[in-house]
Amino acid sequence: MLMRMSTLFLRTLRDDPVDAEVDSHRLLVRAGYIRRAAPGIYTWLPLGLKVLAKVEQVVREEMAAAGAQEIHFPALLPREPYEATNRWTEYGPNLFRLHDRRGNDYLLAPTHEEMFTLVVKDLYSSYKDLPLALYQIQTKYRDEARPRAGLLRGREFIMKDAYTFDIDAESHAASYQAQRDAYERIFARLGLPYVIVTATSGAMGGSRSEEFLSPSPIGEDTYVRSAGGYAANVEAVTTPVPEPVPFDGAPAAHVEDTPDTPTIASLVDVANARFPRPDGSWTAADTLKNVVVALTHPDGGREVVVIGLPGDREVDLKRLEAAVEPAAVEAAGDADFAAHPELVKGYIGPSALGPNAAGARDVAPDGRVLAGAVRYLLDPRVVPGTRWITGADEAGRHVFELVAGRDFTADGTIEAAEVRAGDPAPDGSGPLELARGIEMGHVFDLGTKYSQALGLTVLDQNGKSRVVHMGSYGVGVSRAVAALAENFHDERGLTWPVAVAPAHVHIIATGKDEAVFTAAEEIATQAQERGLEVLIDDRRKVSPGVKFADAELLGVPVVVVVGRGLADGVVEVRRRAAGVTEEVKVAGAAGHVAEVVASLR
Amino acid sequence: MLMRMSTLFLRTLRDDPVDAEVDSHRLLVRAGYIRRAAPGIYTWLPLGLKVLAKVEQVVREEMAAAGAQEIHFPALLPREPYEATNRWTEYGPNLFRLHDRRGNDYLLAPTHEEMFTLVVKDLYSSYKDLPLALYQIQTKYRDEARPRAGLLRGREFIMKDAYTFDIDAESHAASYQAQRDAYERIFARLGLPYVIVTATSGAMGGSRSEEFLSPSPIGEDTYVRSAGGYAANVEAVTTPVPEPVPFDGAPAAHVEDTPDTPTIASLVDVANARFPRPDGSWTAADTLKNVVVALTHPDGGREVVVIGLPGDREVDLKRLEAAVEPAAVEAAGDADFAAHPELVKGYIGPSALGPNAAGARDVAPDGRVLAGAVRYLLDPRVVPGTRWITGADEAGRHVFELVAGRDFTADGTIEAAEVRAGDPAPDGSGPLELARGIEMGHVFDLGTKYSQALGLTVLDQNGKSRVVHMGSYGVGVSRAVAALAENFHDERGLTWPVAVAPAHVHIIATGKDEAVFTAAEEIATQAQERGLEVLIDDRRKVSPGVKFADAELLGVPVVVVVGRGLADGVVEVRRRAAGVTEEVKVAGAAGHVAEVVASLR
Repeated sequence: MLMRMSTLFLRTLRDDPVDAEVDSHRLLVRAGYIRRAAPGIYTWLPLGLKVLAKVEQVVREEMAAAGAQEIHFPALLPREPYEATNRWTEYGPNLFRLHDRRGNDYLLAPTHEEMFTLVVKDLYSSYKDLPLALYQIQTKYRDEARPRAGLLRGREFIMKDAYTFDIDAESHAASYQAQRDAYERIFARLGLPYVIVTATSGAMGGSRSEEFLSPSPIGEDTYVRSAGGYAANVEAVTTPVPEPVPFDGAPAAHVEDTPDTPTIASLVDVANARFPRPDGSWTAADTLKNVVVALTHPDGGREVVVIGLPGDREVDLKRLEAAVEPAAVEAAGDADFAAHPELVKGYIGPSALGPNAAGARDVAPDGRVLAGAVRYLLDPRVVPGTRWITGADEAGRHVFELVAGRDFTADGTIEAAEVRAGDPAPDGSGPLELARGIEMGHVFDLGTKYSQALGLTVLDQNGKSRVVHMGSYGVGVSRAVAALAENFHDERGLTWPVAVAPAHVHIIATGKDEAVFTAAEEIATQAQERGLEVLIDDRRKVSPGVKFADAELLGVPVVVVVGRGLADGVVEVRRRAAGVTEEVKVAGAAGHVAEVVASLR
Repeated sequence: MLMRMSTLFLRTLRDDPVDAEVDSHRLLVRAGYIRRAAPGIYTWLPLGLKVLAKVEQVVREEMAAAGAQEIHFPALLPREPYEATNRWTEYGPNLFRLHDRRGNDYLLAPTHEEMFTLVVKDLYSSYKDLPLALYQIQTKYRDEARPRAGLLRGREFIMKDAYTFDIDAESHAASYQAQRDAYERIFARLGLPYVIVTATSGAMGGSRSEEFLSPSPIGEDTYVRSAGGYAANVEAVTTPVPEPVPFDGAPAAHVEDTPDTPTIASLVDVANARFPRPDGSWTAADTLKNVVVALTHPDGGREVVVIGLPGDREVDLKRLEAAVEPAAVEAAGDADFAAHPELVKGYIGPSALGPNAAGARDVAPDGRVLAGAVRYLLDPRVVPGTRWITGADEAGRHVFELVAGRDFTADGTIEAAEVRAGDPAPDGSGPLELARGIEMGHVFDLGTKYSQALGLTVLDQNGKSRVVHMGSYGVGVSRAVAALAENFHDERGLTWPVAVAPAHVHIIATGKDEAVFTAAEEIATQAQERGLEVLIDDRRKVSPGVKFADAELLGVPVVVVVGRGLADGVVEVRRRAAGVTEEVKVAGAAGHVAEVVASLR
């Protein structure tokens, strides 16, 4: 393959695009790999498409190695299958919905569990047909509220999605492992660093899932690890629950005037000054903060929820969202407070909340407290016997020594408090460290969620009908291009690994001497004969400085500069990433380049 | 590549799908290549996807050979660029439109002229950047009123669309020719018979276009050819206009009672019986039929149009649609007749129509007669001096000897009458023959329609701004799979050419003898070593009859049957399409198969 800078559809840009927040976005646009068509929607220019095709090829090869067969579903799908699994509703505003000319409802698919389930139901009927693994590489749609960071969170994007079908959980475990192994090979071949973490399943449902995260400070996901091997997305971290504390003989709760305590810190100061604790000083961890949020359930119902958590921790919105999924979260508004006069802003306390306060209450299957009551959920640390300073449900007053389990109860617990470095791992494997990562892959044990909803059963060896056990496995293919750029760049531009680079070698002819261009063309021909993909800068009226800068920006792994040295029979060979330059004889240049490329693989 | 029938995601069907009207649809579904997801929307199963990938590869190679560079646009696009060219409106109900969560308008692109124009405008600015050819292979959307025939007319489909950009018409001509040549190579390599015909440009606009049609009785397009080399889609055929006929001294028109003449034939009978012509008998060709239709213009305006044509010809709806494009055509309804009392159903005549009857009238740029009047358009054969029997605008009465140009005029002419075998070619190259074809490709000289609308200019050698001359070129990639199936099948199943077959050889192990399976596997291995793609039927509990029938249905070009003959050291090698079987020694079987496959290329 030979590309020529003189004709390549490319213009590198000096300036960063104004909407670029992250390096990969900035550089992929500046280097002419992608171009924005609309918010979160990108066009692939020639070099970008070559990188994308290489990523796809790696994914295809490893899917084939895992025994998965490729098929291809439409992106435009009828509503009915997604209605059957309730995802037509659950996806909320993230789903692009439309009608056809007859008024029938369609969607642009964000993922294809329903369709894969139905096609297997359509074709297969016996345990002998299983196990089965199918996949596609396909364009998907998600109407993100905040598309950002170029390809990292787009509204039209390319995914590899695979699905496995097994007769039982045991067989599924092997299918799951085969996909998980394939993912490890894919990311290793791409050169993309990754960690595997326990995750929540979100809209996908099912019982178990793991994410492949590429560590990056600009990643949207936060994950934790312990020295003892625990690794999880913060969304999936469960708080170790302390033992209950005996509260026999604990002092009675007492309500106090606490004016001018708008913050936890000011409350703690007042408490220590005016109501000193016999057994030490009060800290923020002794206060119980009650945070009001409003949930919108998929059926459109709005619910006010109060979350009680130690005052030294914030609510982590992503953990909260994961905990209440598929409901959507927003801050409670004036109307919510008006509807619930028991919520005294700034002084909300558990005394007015929870079953104790409200008496017996009916609860819906999704946890909602019926009849429009406020639901009260506690951080798991608030175990019976813990003593708190908290709101007294009257302006300017707090209650002290309020004991959980004695003075108040809740409707349940919730994992919504932030996870902090140093928190204990839930499995006891030591303190947690936090880091950020880009979600590159996600593997799900779906159980029978989709097969049950859509009636995918097979007959087993005894002629009995069995609901098929499914798994679902995604790789963000277009996102991988961005994650690679995020990992492989420096201040001058991109530094692609050989496996995904748009070309192996970038040959630059500098100066005006015809012999330079002739020699560059000869090296290009010889390099192609050695199976290398070549980009040659054969532009006649462009300065060496511009050509060098373009080469740095484009990031082809090996750069050959044919210039003044040619008079002495030498050319320069640079390794773009390492920044190492050597002079080699022009006669052996192509062979040398081939060796360098091989050494970089 | 090795595929195993024991694990391949495939179920062949005994019965034709109920909605299948054509052989390709019937067989592609029965043989498990595709599966319907919604009307006009299909899923590609493993074998279908392999054929599709081969077609795409041929297209990619020939595009590269023509110097075109591949890029990739989104399918989901914002409204604005399509608004600028008026296609947001002109596409009417064929366009899938939707909003995003912020209420912004989007569309699923049916074709990408706007986006290609804008990306070139974005990147390029000088004549030195031209000529340029870009293309993509991409999923497109069109909300067809009547999706039909499986992949032949779908609502989600795959196209290769290419675009060329030139400084002037002369340079464009070379770019156009390069694409046209590439199309000839593509269809030749695919083995798809084709004819190139002059076409209309439809919604694409521009000045010149040619279609590549694959001759087929089930094709939606009708085309004509003359022995002298004229070839055109009937939509593009222009009627040779006869010389005007002198009408000095022609008899005066006379209105007659003509009860019971509901048809042209009955009118002709009555005319001959009661008003015999001095110079011969009346025929249907002497009657002037006036057909009322209603147009809906892109701006939503409705217009009643009357088309006058010789009574021996029908209106060809597709020619009419092409003639009035972008307006849509429907039959006139009761409301239209009510609004125009001058239209006396069954007795409409030109006397009440046209400028003569209506006096001076204003005409809009798109030809509409303003102020809601009926527009009257004549077949080009109705030249001045021709004499007609036609409606007298009174129930039960016709007018005789009504002379065009003397007694009536029209607002213009229209090419809406059917073209018939034997009609003269417009270029005088002899009588026309008619045939049907499937539109496989379409090449357009767009002129400056899009570059003008979207402001794509470059500076020329003198520093002057020049509007870029564009061309657009499409190949129906998914449709090609159907057209191939339409061309290559027999009553037993598909008969793929080697270039696009999902595998080169289909090896069948029959019987229960383990040696048969071992020998089949060995031949499969040896065939793969020779670079062949192999499908092996290694199913243990399936009868030879079922295996043979599946092989016939799937249509892999060479079939090897390993069975009873193995005891004598021979296997059968069948050429699927020719139906020729030969026995060959098992030892040399793979080599022989490789030779046969090579001979079929």
